[in-house]
Amino acid sequence: MSRSGGTADDPGDPQLAAKKEAGAAAADRFVRSGMRLGLGSGSTAIWAVHRIAELLDAGKLTDIAGVPTSPATEELANQLGVPLTTLDEYPRLDVDIDGADEVSPDLDLIKGGGGAHLREMVVAQASDHLVIVVDDTKLVPALGATHALPVEVLPMAERPEREFLESLGASVVKRTTPDRGVFLTAQGNPILDAAFGPIANPAALKLRLDERAGILAVGLFIGYRPTVLVASADGAQRVRTLSPAS
Amino acid sequence: MSRSGGTADDPGDPQLAAKKEAGAAAADRFVRSGMRLGLGSGSTAIWAVHRIAELLDAGKLTDIAGVPTSPATEELANQLGVPLTTLDEYPRLDVDIDGADEVSPDLDLIKGGGGAHLREMVVAQASDHLVIVVDDTKLVPALGATHALPVEVLPMAERPEREFLESLGASVVKRTTPDRGVFLTAQGNPILDAAFGPIANPAALKLRLDERAGILAVGLFIGYRPTVLVASADGAQRVRTLSPAS
Repeated sequence: MSRSGGTADDPGDPQLAAKKEAGAAAADRFVRSGMRLGLGSGSTAIWAVHRIAELLDAGKLTDIAGVPTSPATEELANQLGVPLTTLDEYPRLDVDIDGADEVSPDLDLIKGGGGAHLREMVVAQASDHLVIVVDDTKLVPALGATHALPVEVLPMAERPEREFLESLGASVVKRTTPDRGVFLTAQGNPILDAAFGPIANPAALKLRLDERAGILAVGLFIGYRPTVLVASADGAQRVRTLSPAS
Repeated sequence: MSRSGGTADDPGDPQLAAKKEAGAAAADRFVRSGMRLGLGSGSTAIWAVHRIAELLDAGKLTDIAGVPTSPATEELANQLGVPLTTLDEYPRLDVDIDGADEVSPDLDLIKGGGGAHLREMVVAQASDHLVIVVDDTKLVPALGATHALPVEVLPMAERPEREFLESLGASVVKRTTPDRGVFLTAQGNPILDAAFGPIANPAALKLRLDERAGILAVGLFIGYRPTVLVASADGAQRVRTLSPAS
């Protein structure tokens, strides 16, 4: 589930340049003064937060507040001076800018490579407009083609839900941290990465998984009709925009 | 959401006597040596745990292990010497004995008056047979008739989910403790008690609520086909058995 990514110290990395370009484009095109925002997680969405901070510093944006989707994004926003708020203060947001692990031709998504998909979905459901920023390696012919589906489970239900996912045909791996410990979400729960291969009917699969009491969050984002900004790592194209069919 | 109940020091309370009788009857009729059990929560189901302990002490049951649905039930089982296990050891259970706040004519249930409905549903889904023990005040013509629907929410999503429940017509109250603090579940989340009045289509409502990312558990148990043992507080009848239509 790792993203190859690069760092700010590695300006020659074309995939990193693409991520930065997509993130900055989302802020430039969709964020306006006075908006309440969702601030996504992951290696592309964080560049929207950087760009919002630049625009605030330059006086080109004012009266912005964002709801972070992960502790990492909250920390980044605090470091960069992007004002934060909560869904308790603003239960509806104007625009949510986030990344994705896979984008299907219907603009449905797999998210959760960073393990933040529960909060990411809460924020997406609270937002009038979802803007997804990706590099073009995330475009797939069918969800599940390249990534396992992240499934956050209640600790006591890990084995029954693993067996349920396996009964649906998935190969299931419990997510670990880089040092081989158990990965836990911000809520303290493990994630089962369920590799289904290409998923024929993602909406039907989501219904079956939502019904399971021990499954707390499934990284399938179906029917959100996002605007998707796609940057290419080969540098041959500018950022492309994919919009939902009307 | 309070249960009137009584205590073991109040043997003359007919509702308490009914709860005890229903709980004991469930253990007598459905628990056999060698079984793996779900041990429910609440003021009736705990009497099944008491009866199982008596049967173990008397040597009439052996090789029993139960998965508790709440910290309170875990503590009770430990006090009484009922062996405990986990779904990690036994992902399938033979029989789950639990209570309910409402039982409809179709034997669908509202649960969660004690706030344990997330774990209770995990255990019910893992069980081959659900046995529900209630006194006859819990039988209702339609779910929602007498009780609000308990909805466990992610703390950050409390206001959006409250507004979503209200948009569906519910009157919503955040649950408090007896000393007016915020009630938190074993997972550390608040509960919104959503009073809908009689619910015309509980299955459709559950689907809409399951889809919400910030709603972690809804106390609607639909389609479990439980055996329901009903004890009457007036003492005129023995424990009645309601079974699902075949």
